[in-house]
Amino acid sequence: MDDRPNPQDDALATDETPELISSGKVVGTAVYNRKAELLGSIYGLMLNKLNGRVAYAVMSFGGFLGIGDAYYPLPWKLLVYDTRLNGYVVDLDAGQLEAAPRYTDEPDWAACGRGIDLYYGSLGFSV
Amino acid sequence: MDDRPNPQDDALATDETPELISSGKVVGTAVYNRKAELLGSIYGLMLNKLNGRVAYAVMSFGGFLGIGDAYYPLPWKLLVYDTRLNGYVVDLDAGQLEAAPRYTDEPDWAACGRGIDLYYGSLGFSV
Repeated sequence: MDDRPNPQDDALATDETPELISSGKVVGTAVYNRKAELLGSIYGLMLNKLNGRVAYAVMSFGGFLGIGDAYYPLPWKLLVYDTRLNGYVVDLDAGQLEAAPRYTDEPDWAACGRGIDLYYGSLGFSV
Repeated sequence: MDDRPNPQDDALATDETPELISSGKVVGTAVYNRKAELLGSIYGLMLNKLNGRVAYAVMSFGGFLGIGDAYYPLPWKLLVYDTRLNGYVVDLDAGQLEAAPRYTDEPDWAACGRGIDLYYGSLGFSV
């Protein structure tokens, strides 16, 4: 038996509290749909410089349900953490993802910004 | 002469716009005081899970001006980017840093949270 403290426990304790989470812990976290099917993972976060908000969480989708490999900038509020899955769940079906703003290479954030909020707002999410 | 596009230019384009910046670009960025003296660098960002705001930018200070090696959680608004320095400038003098909330090992965020806003608010920053 080895009951020495796991060094990872300390790292986790500094990475997250009930209210706070480190950016480093969010990036790389798996993303699932409501059927618990793996869609991809968090590739990065885009921050609004002025107000310090997470403008978008960028998810990389590995090509699934006939949808190609791409990066999807999503409003932060769409990400709901599921402790059983150890990942985020987004309530988006294949059709909604298919139609969502995405980029495959370099994002055009200036053009993208309004479109992202408009799109997810039109799906009924408060963004 | 080599006028081929620099691959870094593309990376930068996706990392930052006038309004947005990626979390990955913020982390590791140098931090200076008003005298352009290097204090340390951004170690990580702590996000508020509920409202999606950057709660604190954690700066690691390498031991300077007689102040020991430590991590300083700072309100996002204190970070002002200086294009000449290629880093953030914080308007804090040695005495203010000396008295600032910090941790040397594992942060106690629950206890820390109110103290950080209180402290920087008391210095006249809007937090």
